[in-house]
Amino acid sequence: MNIDIELIQDSKLNTVDFNNLAFGRIFTDHMLVCDFANGEWKTPKIMPYGPMLFEPSARVFHYGQAVFEGMKAYKDDNDDVFLFRPDENFNRINKSGERLAMPTVPEDVFFEGLKKLLEVDNAWIKKGEGNSLYIRPFIIASEGAISASPAEEYKFIIICSPAQSYYAGEVRVIFAEKYSRSADGGVGFAKAAGNYAAQFYPTSLAHKEGYQQIVWTDASTHEFLEEAGTMNVFFRIGDKLVTAPTSDRILDGVTRKSIVQLAKDFNIDIEVRRVSVTEIKEAAKKGELKEMFGSGTAAVINPIKGFKHQNDTFELPEISDSYASFFKEKLLGIQYNKLEDKHNWRVKL
Amino acid sequence: MNIDIELIQDSKLNTVDFNNLAFGRIFTDHMLVCDFANGEWKTPKIMPYGPMLFEPSARVFHYGQAVFEGMKAYKDDNDDVFLFRPDENFNRINKSGERLAMPTVPEDVFFEGLKKLLEVDNAWIKKGEGNSLYIRPFIIASEGAISASPAEEYKFIIICSPAQSYYAGEVRVIFAEKYSRSADGGVGFAKAAGNYAAQFYPTSLAHKEGYQQIVWTDASTHEFLEEAGTMNVFFRIGDKLVTAPTSDRILDGVTRKSIVQLAKDFNIDIEVRRVSVTEIKEAAKKGELKEMFGSGTAAVINPIKGFKHQNDTFELPEISDSYASFFKEKLLGIQYNKLEDKHNWRVKL
Ligand SMILES: Cc1ncc(COP(=O)(O)O)c(C=O)c1O
Ligand SMILES: Cc1ncc(COP(=O)(O)O)c(C=O)c1O
Repeated sequence: MNIDIELIQDSKLNTVDFNNLAFGRIFTDHMLVCDFANGEWKTPKIMPYGPMLFEPSARVFHYGQAVFEGMKAYKDDNDDVFLFRPDENFNRINKSGERLAMPTVPEDVFFEGLKKLLEVDNAWIKKGEGNSLYIRPFIIASEGAISASPAEEYKFIIICSPAQSYYAGEVRVIFAEKYSRSADGGVGFAKAAGNYAAQFYPTSLAHKEGYQQIVWTDASTHEFLEEAGTMNVFFRIGDKLVTAPTSDRILDGVTRKSIVQLAKDFNIDIEVRRVSVTEIKEAAKKGELKEMFGSGTAAVINPIKGFKHQNDTFELPEISDSYASFFKEKLLGIQYNKLEDKHNWRVKL
Repeated sequence: MNIDIELIQDSKLNTVDFNNLAFGRIFTDHMLVCDFANGEWKTPKIMPYGPMLFEPSARVFHYGQAVFEGMKAYKDDNDDVFLFRPDENFNRINKSGERLAMPTVPEDVFFEGLKKLLEVDNAWIKKGEGNSLYIRPFIIASEGAISASPAEEYKFIIICSPAQSYYAGEVRVIFAEKYSRSADGGVGFAKAAGNYAAQFYPTSLAHKEGYQQIVWTDASTHEFLEEAGTMNVFFRIGDKLVTAPTSDRILDGVTRKSIVQLAKDFNIDIEVRRVSVTEIKEAAKKGELKEMFGSGTAAVINPIKGFKHQNDTFELPEISDSYASFFKEKLLGIQYNKLEDKHNWRVKL
């Protein structure tokens, strides 16, 4: 496939303090841009990262046609670069896009474009524990027209941001009682931009109460636990791990499905089924709720220390042989080419 | 209030065919732009309409922080310019924005900015029946940072597009059975960009079956009728008019609330209450469903000719003394300064 390449004159690489990276604020020297117009994707371009011109009437600003992905590139001690299950992200961005009536991105544009971009910006991928390059592919409706209908013109863009091991601090959550994230028959399963803005205000209310995140419940009854803002959620009751099934309300997380597989591989008892607020509160009261954790590409696994529902608050016990650490170690081992990868999740570039 | 003004060199006005306007594709010479940064709104600027620079990492592209309004300016035979209940749009854009954790736009920026913009582009407001200037105020998150949290930087923008009397053709609708527009506790009441993209795909399925729009039902049971993509919906059963109450799932339409008031003024029996699919189908079967219509700023009132639910299809009768025409005439009369305006809805600029 043909890719037009315009390289930057002076790399910004030396100006970046890789030991003090705020997540998602620094971008690499280049980006990939591919335009869709007249029913087809044009030749992708790699060009210097920087501001781009958009019509103020671009439909993305008015009607929210925007979907994205989040993935990472990892470098091992031999300077080889790996992706983790990138097919999942490719399939998911197109599944998300279809739900918003957007054109699907061709496989070669996605993979050859990404590969070339990572070649050009290879020096931005730092090796060493916790270091990675966060990759953000996204598709937005760029056509300048404000009638409420799908756009005829889009941009597929990949930008990259160097990331360190992500420590979000101690995380406590609120189980949603009033606000909700998505409806049956809605777009909750899609990585659609609008799903995120919708969570900011309720999450800011949680912050005021001293909680970092919300675990969303089903919108009809608020009785079944679904997922957090950018993480799927697991519960350990006794030695059994439980997580909600995916549905049209829940993002089908790559980390989540990898954990489900690893649990099976390592004979950890796992159930994928509806999880009720009542069950979790009961288990917590009896001391049977040993762990809760979130899973997602950014943080891999994020232990949850406590939760609140209505007027009840719970703290989870300190635990030494936690599933959270176990899975995190396994996943990082596979991602950084340190452990056997029996499902071929790792893809060498 | 201070407004910086940069006027265009050559107006595009003469290049525009005002008898053949596609909705929302042609914009006036100028736009208003006001930046929010460091916790405050800066001096608004009026400048030539045109493409603007955005970081590819601007949060609006990733997390959908974007809300908008739709309003119109009307010119009467004396060349006076009027807005219709603009306070409603001002309050609503801020209500929408708050739900997406965005800063509220100050009253003077909104009104003085809009007034000045309409002065500068006054020649774009054509008089004569059905002509108007469609006004699109919107707020978007412009900060370049891709962590999933509210932006620190925004732009409030107003663009304007000349519009003719809007005739959407014959409209038939499907009552939603599977897909849904919004959840309890969600953002359905907000004019949030993401709500619109979410409707495009189900609506495209309706198009394939020969229906132009979907009337959304509640996501939990699909039994209660709510609103259409960009219109609230009214049902006339016998001589009684019925429309769904507003809620956190439904946009509180200005046209809708004006019709409710006019119905009271003219002693038309109106009920604002839940409307079930069953009730409407029963009424249609008995021949008691005399009319259905949508209401919204763009089309004012859009008669609905028929509907489908499950495998049942219904055609509504031709009707001479329709409520749809009655309310449309009244509303246009007030908007174009031809009828008495006893509620002071008309605002002269
Ligand atoms: C809503 C939501 N849930 C869950 C996840 C976790 O998915 P993944 O493991 O694929 O990163 C994400 C994204 O990262 C998300 O945005
Ligand atoms: C979802 C939705 N419902 C209803 C309406 C009608 O509202 P209004 O009468 O204020 O234009 C609109 C917008 O125009 C809308 O976007």
